Amino acid sequence: MKQVTIGIDIGGTNTKFGLVDKDGRILASHSIRTPRDQSINDYVEELSRSLHGLIDLSQEELQLMGMGIGAPNGNYYEGTIEDAPNLIWDGVIPFVDLMKEKFDVHTVITNDANAAAIGEMVYGGAKEMKDFIVITLGTGIGSGFIVNGELVYGADGFAGEFGHVITVWDGRPCTCGRRGCIETYASARGVVLTVMAELAGSKRDSGLRNLHYQEITPKKIFEAAEAGDPIAQRAFERTGNMLGRALSNLVNIFSPEAIFLFGGVARAGHWIIDPTKNAMENNVLPIFRNKVQIIPSHLPASDAAILGASALAWKELEKLKK
Amino acid sequence: MKQVTIGIDIGGTNTKFGLVDKDGRILASHSIRTPRDQSINDYVEELSRSLHGLIDLSQEELQLMGMGIGAPNGNYYEGTIEDAPNLIWDGVIPFVDLMKEKFDVHTVITNDANAAAIGEMVYGGAKEMKDFIVITLGTGIGSGFIVNGELVYGADGFAGEFGHVITVWDGRPCTCGRRGCIETYASARGVVLTVMAELAGSKRDSGLRNLHYQEITPKKIFEAAEAGDPIAQRAFERTGNMLGRALSNLVNIFSPEAIFLFGGVARAGHWIIDPTKNAMENNVLPIFRNKVQIIPSHLPASDAAILGASALAWKELEKLKK
Repeated sequence: MKQVTIGIDIGGTNTKFGLVDKDGRILASHSIRTPRDQSINDYVEELSRSLHGLIDLSQEELQLMGMGIGAPNGNYYEGTIEDAPNLIWDGVIPFVDLMKEKFDVHTVITNDANAAAIGEMVYGGAKEMKDFIVITLGTGIGSGFIVNGELVYGADGFAGEFGHVITVWDGRPCTCGRRGCIETYASARGVVLTVMAELAGSKRDSGLRNLHYQEITPKKIFEAAEAGDPIAQRAFERTGNMLGRALSNLVNIFSPEAIFLFGGVARAGHWIIDPTKNAMENNVLPIFRNKVQIIPSHLPASDAAILGASALAWKELEKLKK
Repeated sequence: MKQVTIGIDIGGTNTKFGLVDKDGRILASHSIRTPRDQSINDYVEELSRSLHGLIDLSQEELQLMGMGIGAPNGNYYEGTIEDAPNLIWDGVIPFVDLMKEKFDVHTVITNDANAAAIGEMVYGGAKEMKDFIVITLGTGIGSGFIVNGELVYGADGFAGEFGHVITVWDGRPCTCGRRGCIETYASARGVVLTVMAELAGSKRDSGLRNLHYQEITPKKIFEAAEAGDPIAQRAFERTGNMLGRALSNLVNIFSPEAIFLFGGVARAGHWIIDPTKNAMENNVLPIFRNKVQIIPSHLPASDAAILGASALAWKELEKLKK
């Protein structure tokens, strides 16, 4: 019998799920739409049916060991999803309890960035590390902090909001209602805003002048930078400079072995990694200089969310054994 | 037989030490000068002789369980003191090994702020807490972070340098060679600088105008504030505003149950706590609002250093039992 855990990643648009073995091999995976108008009970029903289907289709005989869920505002302690801004269900959803009615296995939930951090520890580049940080640079910025080999959940289960660390007092307006959060500078949207600022402040020629605001993406900026576009290159440099400064403050507090970058902006590779690393080293306290690696996540982008959620389940089973 | 640990606090001027039982009762304590020109071996010799004297003087029969040491740049993992700027010995001192030659007990070292955090957990106001932060507002700013009931030492043993988190880019020059560290605003020296700035920027009458720079201390500013001095009151308000902003960023990351303030500046009570709390609440991410207490340390100021160091030893013994 093959031992597997279920990994579920609930995103604003899609819910991805898969069966994953202890080595991080995805035996089967599938996805459904995250509803825009369905009740939570109907959604749990549909998700469970799809999961049972996936298990039944398996060629091997499976032993289901546990279930891990990554969801916006997922609360590890309570097993709930609480007032997630990009899901339709208001209030506090007892999601772990709802899933346990369908699958009688140990089930845990956290947010997607925390799941990514555990994925990096169980399957990725942090297998040998006890102190590291994962930053997801997507539409927003998420983060997961591992200290002494354990995830930092904080007193209420919601720790790890690096994206909303204020880096510029009275800086750019953020979706959270505050100003100057690092998310407004180093998320996908942040880089695009920096391109706009560069276009406004420079007379230099750039292919990016032919795209309107909604068309510009980190991928397009990356392609422009690769093709020698000075505006694109300068936008990544400014983004990395801001991100590196913010990371230097994290290093002073956590002294991590490495910081893993994940998500759309991180896929710009050296264009973003190099200025980030430079700014971090230039701003960190001297005793931490040249100690902390900044590296791209080792998890495959397409499967990272499922892997992270399933790793959460494996990690929990390990804890229970102790 | 009474079980005790030795707590040693090595400061730039004095070395304090004591015998402490599991309830935080100090059975005996003493101090010697931290040398300005003595070799490390002579110092260890003198310290051991004083400690043996303290043990011999005891009325009760004692069972020595362990030793905890708080020292600048104390490295928990290595048992060393590394390039401490305010001690005379250069390089890496294997201090734990040197002490173990004199006392054959389990011995651990960390810096004084980390020891203060463990003291707060073992004897102070954080007995029931698993996630909290201790900030020491003294000549400099130190900090100890407790996550999941464990101290955050980081990958190299030097984590927890909140004092050098940059809060104002290109702000006040810091002793570390960088600019804008929170230490330059909220340490004892920082508050004095803010008083100078207030005196320079205002025509208001103030008793503080009769003191020169070196004479102004947090205690004098506190007394002036109590007596209604508007410059003193405004200096604490500005200090708290800066500190609260910096703490709001910590809360977004750690989601602690409480933040304990300790040291000379914290003794200004509500003059510093209230504006700090206000600024923190105004700047923190909404989900963390009204969740985090800011409270003065519960440890007695005079004995906190010895208590913290001895608590480190008790905590270590507990870990070894597991």
